[in-house]
Amino acid sequence: MERPILASMDIDAMRHNLTRIRELAPQTQVWSVIKANAYGHGFAAALKGLALTDGFALLDIQDARYLRENGWKGPILLLEGLFSADDLKLAFMLDCTLVVHTESQVAALETFDLTQHQAKPRPIYLKMNTGMNRLGFSPSDYRLMYHRLHAAGYAMHHMTHFANADRVDCLPSVGSQYDLFNEAITDLPGDTSTANSGAILWHRTVLGEWVRPGIMLYGASPSGSFADIAHANLKPVMRLSSEIISIQVVKKGEKVGYGGRFTAPEEMRIGIVACGYADGYPRSASDGTPVWVADGGDTSNGVICPLAGQVSMDMLTIDLRAAPLAKIGSKVELWGKHIPVDDVAQSAGTIGYELLCALAPRVPIQLVV
Amino acid sequence: MERPILASMDIDAMRHNLTRIRELAPQTQVWSVIKANAYGHGFAAALKGLALTDGFALLDIQDARYLRENGWKGPILLLEGLFSADDLKLAFMLDCTLVVHTESQVAALETFDLTQHQAKPRPIYLKMNTGMNRLGFSPSDYRLMYHRLHAAGYAMHHMTHFANADRVDCLPSVGSQYDLFNEAITDLPGDTSTANSGAILWHRTVLGEWVRPGIMLYGASPSGSFADIAHANLKPVMRLSSEIISIQVVKKGEKVGYGGRFTAPEEMRIGIVACGYADGYPRSASDGTPVWVADGGDTSNGVICPLAGQVSMDMLTIDLRAAPLAKIGSKVELWGKHIPVDDVAQSAGTIGYELLCALAPRVPIQLVV
Repeated sequence: MERPILASMDIDAMRHNLTRIRELAPQTQVWSVIKANAYGHGFAAALKGLALTDGFALLDIQDARYLRENGWKGPILLLEGLFSADDLKLAFMLDCTLVVHTESQVAALETFDLTQHQAKPRPIYLKMNTGMNRLGFSPSDYRLMYHRLHAAGYAMHHMTHFANADRVDCLPSVGSQYDLFNEAITDLPGDTSTANSGAILWHRTVLGEWVRPGIMLYGASPSGSFADIAHANLKPVMRLSSEIISIQVVKKGEKVGYGGRFTAPEEMRIGIVACGYADGYPRSASDGTPVWVADGGDTSNGVICPLAGQVSMDMLTIDLRAAPLAKIGSKVELWGKHIPVDDVAQSAGTIGYELLCALAPRVPIQLVV
Repeated sequence: MERPILASMDIDAMRHNLTRIRELAPQTQVWSVIKANAYGHGFAAALKGLALTDGFALLDIQDARYLRENGWKGPILLLEGLFSADDLKLAFMLDCTLVVHTESQVAALETFDLTQHQAKPRPIYLKMNTGMNRLGFSPSDYRLMYHRLHAAGYAMHHMTHFANADRVDCLPSVGSQYDLFNEAITDLPGDTSTANSGAILWHRTVLGEWVRPGIMLYGASPSGSFADIAHANLKPVMRLSSEIISIQVVKKGEKVGYGGRFTAPEEMRIGIVACGYADGYPRSASDGTPVWVADGGDTSNGVICPLAGQVSMDMLTIDLRAAPLAKIGSKVELWGKHIPVDDVAQSAGTIGYELLCALAPRVPIQLVV
């Protein structure tokens, strides 16, 4: 047996979340975003749980190759296009749809000899920067690039990305970005893809023809706050679990862990859990972050035991006062059905996305079907 | 070509740091701590750069197997011992030295039929909890456990771990832990291992027979502050680099990225770098975090360009005003020789350890010899 830490991926929950997206966006097709190793869940889980998606969107052409080798025959969207023109042939061989966001990508596509590598016009999503100021052409440059690629024989579609679909108080607003986008593509044929998870949940008038959900496929919140999706009927896919590997009885006033951050307010038991920041649990989690512990033999009967002391590389420490029956070997859930990953993230000053993606390779993954 | 991100490991720097440890602790032997995939650097790098260590200390028995399969014949220390008694046979077959920190581990060793699996007495490091309150026996229980294992035929050694070797203002102090330890092992034969990197650098009277450096092998600071090791003659091993993949010209008052956190104070260029939190760069890094950018074709001629806007999953955005010659394809260092990883960590509210360990599997690793 290795360390008792485990990440279980609930395939049914993933299926459920995709179904939920179809309910929320019934007129659209779905690019399921599985970049960053499917937000830490692994491509194997994604291929199983999202088998009914219309297409997969990802970053790295090697991941596209993995999908093809593992039987995926539907569309694949490379979200940042190609990092080198040398990959064009491979991309078309793998039947990828490319995002194009720089002039050099346009030029490479223009000079590529399409006739040798296609049976049908190759689809391109041209990316417009409508205020995110990350990738894409300004609305004024956009039309020119569109016409250049259209003239070169590509099947053109439109894309932009919202900066604040999960926020109400930040600029630019979804509405202003969407208006700018629509104005710039007036009279230009092609599908549109604009909506990330936040837009699917909270801005259902800007969905376009293809939505691009990411975080909601995995049952976490676009805003980083679980309260925002508590009634959205999404199910968490990843469960990070481990066990108590040691228990210390500390006296009143004794310190726990590096820097002695936690001081025992009375004589009490501290549980040491085999999970640390090198597993992906955030080091910045503050004392009080909820951890679920099976109290006694019945693993369904759990209680919340707050984090007590600085998370270290391979272990974390919890206050066991609420779990008098917990012992070495007791099951612990760091996040999953009992503890939303967003709650752990908030307690660490970040969002669930970062924790899911940061799941370390040393944590074994189990698919639960 | 895949995404331009790359982690280069400087093998000479690793060798240098080990030599430096021997200068600082000349009378001791060295357990090089390579848990968490050698703090993110990979076991291949560790085997090369630390070939002259006296022993390797790690966590997972599968990693011990990897070392043996790749030619390491010296001592291997399993820092948390075994997670299951079923692994005892494998551990001894791999000639591992075990840490023992619970009574159940003691009991398993007592009942194990040593005569079948040894040519020499098996070495054990018994772990004492002297105030860290994580793993180990209380000083009062320690002697009993020592005698039980000694009677069962094991070669006994002593270990404890400091909670505050890198801090001056926290309890328990190194001195108080060390005194407690020495008092408890009075008259008990065996080597001692107490000193982590912080103790090797700043508490050279508590080194024992075997030191256990971790973070300093990789050229980062035990305290999390680069200033604390600026004159210690350690060299950073990991360099995380990438490239600018897009440039946006934003007008005064325009926002950049999610939440519009950065507002342009004037018309300026924003560089988009192919590195995000799913690569291991911390999402919590604040605006102003230093990023090194090659300004022009000469890659040795770089300038610091501050982070400008929220780090996203696959990209980050920087203020290019100091780098007028930077363009798409310009080289970027996120941390390494120009930017201490500790500086990035501090700007994100954490320590270098966490960033190094969190290097994502999707980032290719290159050994630089």
